[in-house]
Amino acid sequence: MKGKLVTFEGCEGVGKSTQLKQLQAYLEKTGQKALFTREPGGNAISEQIRAVILNPENKEMSPICEALLYAAARAQLVEKVIQPALERGELVICDRFVDSSVAYQGGARGLGAETVIAINDYALKGLKPDLTVFIDLPPERSFRSRTKALSLEDRFENENQEFHKKVYEGYIRAAELSQGRIVKVEPCADKAQTTAKIINLLRQKGIIV
Amino acid sequence: MKGKLVTFEGCEGVGKSTQLKQLQAYLEKTGQKALFTREPGGNAISEQIRAVILNPENKEMSPICEALLYAAARAQLVEKVIQPALERGELVICDRFVDSSVAYQGGARGLGAETVIAINDYALKGLKPDLTVFIDLPPERSFRSRTKALSLEDRFENENQEFHKKVYEGYIRAAELSQGRIVKVEPCADKAQTTAKIINLLRQKGIIV
Repeated sequence: MKGKLVTFEGCEGVGKSTQLKQLQAYLEKTGQKALFTREPGGNAISEQIRAVILNPENKEMSPICEALLYAAARAQLVEKVIQPALERGELVICDRFVDSSVAYQGGARGLGAETVIAINDYALKGLKPDLTVFIDLPPERSFRSRTKALSLEDRFENENQEFHKKVYEGYIRAAELSQGRIVKVEPCADKAQTTAKIINLLRQKGIIV
Repeated sequence: MKGKLVTFEGCEGVGKSTQLKQLQAYLEKTGQKALFTREPGGNAISEQIRAVILNPENKEMSPICEALLYAAARAQLVEKVIQPALERGELVICDRFVDSSVAYQGGARGLGAETVIAINDYALKGLKPDLTVFIDLPPERSFRSRTKALSLEDRFENENQEFHKKVYEGYIRAAELSQGRIVKVEPCADKAQTTAKIINLLRQKGIIV
């Protein structure tokens, strides 16, 4: 495996998508190749699974069904997109990955991290991110700023503050157990400063130049 | 758990659906209540998952993605339909269940029975059919009769003879390991005779009268 896998994690509304766009712009400007993908999704079959997972009408979905659907979408993305890119020596940058399942289904839905990790072992086949950037903003600080723009387009955005608090705690525990793989980046009021922090981190780790 | 769960299994084109309809007619005629359901599906969310699994365009689906999708659909069906019915003391009759995954994904797709059983343990939460009726017709005998009617509407019907042979072998191995839970019923040329065999079996087991 010659390439590197970097994943981005965080609660809803922390500015993850904006930061990923900024990083992509930086890499393009400096002529560095990277494959950007997202979860759940990133290929035709996983996007169909994404539609089932996020459908706001699917309120009755059981936590274990949800966890297995995420793992299914992930299995397909890993086998058809991420693994082949890594084998070609590419840098892969993924918007959410297995730590989302640990935080959301393991933590907030109450399945427990061990169950979620065990299910995902089948999907990952030993693959682990080289680095995970956790945009560290607790929901009580991010939530207020985004209620205006709340789209209600997916089931997770509809969850209450208590749910998002548990997601955050799930991430913090995952970070503690990650032996340095998950690195917390506290976002700044100025988005460009956050981007600079992220670029510096990836440069320090030798992932980009 | 006061109710009973009976599942029906078999290769494509063995007449499973016909037999289930005949059994349903018999139970209605004799005033016996039963909940008939099917896999993958049986509830709104699992039917959405079914559409992804069977979509003939999803040729690139990896075996592990497929196995996780079946387990997700099953988890939802168990939690929302089968378990509540069993708790109410009802008889539940399901067209395909976990043995299909063992035969198709474990056997024919090559994941191995152990992996498929381990994944499904999360979906089943200890639930096991009280009886599984395996309509025992090897594909070389059933396939010819149905090529005329081949719908090509789902990915499994499109698989070749070799695939269906492995499915059959997977079922045979599962039956051997099932300690009597999976009972083979060889279908007769006369469909009504097959129905009579199935009804007799269910009566002998004390599941229906």
